[in-house]
Amino acid sequence: MWCSKQSAESYSLLAFSPLDFGDFRSRDNSQQMTTTQTDGQWSHEEIRIAKSALKKAYKQETEALIANIRENAANVTQLEDVWQLHDFLSAKRHDIDGKYDDREDFLVFTLSKLIKTGLLDKSDLQGLAADKQAKVTVLTRM
Amino acid sequence: MWCSKQSAESYSLLAFSPLDFGDFRSRDNSQQMTTTQTDGQWSHEEIRIAKSALKKAYKQETEALIANIRENAANVTQLEDVWQLHDFLSAKRHDIDGKYDDREDFLVFTLSKLIKTGLLDKSDLQGLAADKQAKVTVLTRM
Repeated sequence: MWCSKQSAESYSLLAFSPLDFGDFRSRDNSQQMTTTQTDGQWSHEEIRIAKSALKKAYKQETEALIANIRENAANVTQLEDVWQLHDFLSAKRHDIDGKYDDREDFLVFTLSKLIKTGLLDKSDLQGLAADKQAKVTVLTRM
Repeated sequence: MWCSKQSAESYSLLAFSPLDFGDFRSRDNSQQMTTTQTDGQWSHEEIRIAKSALKKAYKQETEALIANIRENAANVTQLEDVWQLHDFLSAKRHDIDGKYDDREDFLVFTLSKLIKTGLLDKSDLQGLAADKQAKVTVLTRM
């Protein structure tokens, strides 16, 4: 798929590294994790909620991207359409690569950005401590 | 087209600059051009032939690229397919941007590369001086 019919020149395929939702916590913070909820720290239940929210947003965004490509391919009739698609994918890749930062220290920022862009709703954060929900809400206004 | 449904964030569109086949000769060499064919220099007729060959190859390559995208879009079902498409387009863009160098001093190299990759045939060079055809032939073997 997507191989040139005319040229035997190879091109490198950068392996896509999907987000590993298996271990949601970064290694650096794992030593600090507790099973009880303390101010500023994330309980196991909160991590489960955040993990579920990120998965939901990621699935929604990637499925929409795939649908977008499939639906619009028929509109590619000129070379400038091809490069427009390339620019779009470059921007999307950069955006997605940086958007789902699941390190504990960055979770409130990650969640707030996903809410701002419509990929999550505040209701997806139900179950998080009030201080964390408040931080996310403040960040969505910035 | 190719716009995210979920994010209002804009992305830059690098304007594609199609090759300008209108003036085939580079400015630096235009003073040296003659209407008669001399050793190493390109006559007007030779330039017309080379210009026609490059146009033919460019048209063939870009039309095949567009057809490839349209045909294979239905096979994009996973995110890794999307990034594979992106990698493919990155390589193609880089390749096409550098492949059609129409400066007089580089024409034998340009033509030889197009023959090597099957975008042109030696018969497309009929009408060029024997020394130029020989140079192109030698380069296709390198």
